[in-house]
Amino acid sequence: MVIDRLAEAVATRGPVCMGLDPTPDLIPGSLAGLPLPEAVARFNRKIVDATLDVVACYKVQIAHYEAMGVEGLRCYAETLRYIRGAGGIVIGDVKRGDIGTTSAMYAAAHLSGEFEADFVTLNPYLGFDAVGPFLPYLKDGAKGLFLLIRTSNPSAQEVQDVGCGGRPLYLHVADLVHRWGEGLRGRSGFSAIGGVVGGTCPEALERVRGAFPSMFLLVPGYGAQGAGGPEVARAFVGGTGAVVAASRSIIGAHRGKPGARFAEHIRKAVLRMREEIARCLA
Amino acid sequence: MVIDRLAEAVATRGPVCMGLDPTPDLIPGSLAGLPLPEAVARFNRKIVDATLDVVACYKVQIAHYEAMGVEGLRCYAETLRYIRGAGGIVIGDVKRGDIGTTSAMYAAAHLSGEFEADFVTLNPYLGFDAVGPFLPYLKDGAKGLFLLIRTSNPSAQEVQDVGCGGRPLYLHVADLVHRWGEGLRGRSGFSAIGGVVGGTCPEALERVRGAFPSMFLLVPGYGAQGAGGPEVARAFVGGTGAVVAASRSIIGAHRGKPGARFAEHIRKAVLRMREEIARCLA
Repeated sequence: MVIDRLAEAVATRGPVCMGLDPTPDLIPGSLAGLPLPEAVARFNRKIVDATLDVVACYKVQIAHYEAMGVEGLRCYAETLRYIRGAGGIVIGDVKRGDIGTTSAMYAAAHLSGEFEADFVTLNPYLGFDAVGPFLPYLKDGAKGLFLLIRTSNPSAQEVQDVGCGGRPLYLHVADLVHRWGEGLRGRSGFSAIGGVVGGTCPEALERVRGAFPSMFLLVPGYGAQGAGGPEVARAFVGGTGAVVAASRSIIGAHRGKPGARFAEHIRKAVLRMREEIARCLA
Repeated sequence: MVIDRLAEAVATRGPVCMGLDPTPDLIPGSLAGLPLPEAVARFNRKIVDATLDVVACYKVQIAHYEAMGVEGLRCYAETLRYIRGAGGIVIGDVKRGDIGTTSAMYAAAHLSGEFEADFVTLNPYLGFDAVGPFLPYLKDGAKGLFLLIRTSNPSAQEVQDVGCGGRPLYLHVADLVHRWGEGLRGRSGFSAIGGVVGGTCPEALERVRGAFPSMFLLVPGYGAQGAGGPEVARAFVGGTGAVVAASRSIIGAHRGKPGARFAEHIRKAVLRMREEIARCLA
């Protein structure tokens, strides 16, 4: 199962989930003359080549590609294909969520065909209808999902922390996510349906991790958003069970350091992040 | 302001919001030989030509286009451009929702450039961060938003109806949506930030409409999903303030009626729906 591959990747290559969310200011000078989608595709390929052995997986945030229009989505498709072709694991960070018939379209779009990812992120606001149509793709273990539980952004609390029967809404959502994924555990013990819990909310990390040991966690918020090693360490069980996402703080590591070797600076930033988390887990 | 144009369109052309969510089985025989994205683009253009004077607006559900890959998204872009070029109003039904920096990318993607719509739908689970970056596009009145409040699908209740401080979560969300849109009212009295409330949940329609008379409502769930005229009538204030979305029950009206004149059957289905709602509003 792909969730077992991910758990194993964390154990052998460390828990860094590299966010490929490039903005024009991150494109190195050596690629600056190209049309933006082409420059981004090449930037991504170079990053993947330089980091495949030191990251658990990649997370590609589709908004950055939608903002470049149709050619941007071609670049999104190419980036996913390149990662998967190189043997990497990729999370399509699409945060979709819709009624059943529409969810079926999203499932086809993002777990098969041109935009095929290994995992996708989904929004739970519509309940199980947003998730059910993805399950046929999960049955043989080939794919997985990450459902938003407690996100890393400042205003997450406006909805996700609202008190519902004596506990925050996000714990109610975590219960649902756990139930949806109950029958889908791999030999690693983790379910193919995981949760997203931000490193910026250590209390949520601790409560979700404590209540649901079989839930694999995708932890955003590291670096640019403010969470550090001690915060994200709470997401792990026995050294695995979580990946920690970072984007700008890594893929922007080459800025201010001119020359063609931008990928080396990015690789070094991954190694630094991996070491900081390892120290906090020890 | 575009919200005033929409309110006026409802008053003059009726409240039908036509969902352009084509699946392969809805494509008429006369277009069957073409590649699917091209067939869908032509199907949509013919439908728009035949209905522009009898619908309030169009709603294009992007999942159906993402499922066709990169060329599907070119078809999505073309459909939006065609509607806006013909003077129609179009809602990009994208239901995006993300952290601030990512929301800014989605705002650029869907309120400008190739995928530019007049309105987009957004998911409120992440709170204001998902909405704020769209506001610069709303300031001059050119654009609007519809935030999910109570959706039309069966499992909506799993999250949206959860009791929070003595009321369902969706009313808490409606409060937030109202607050976010408070300073953005047009001369029609309606805010550029509206809400989505399903016709399949008449209680929610009544409570949201009762509490927030300045909130324009997008009401899905009519037809194939089960809501009828009496249910959706609760969404209106003085004959306007809401649009009622339907897709398959209208754009599939030509099926089983062969011949090249599929658009006439679709137009007739719009007129029937418009009459049923008008009867219930009288």
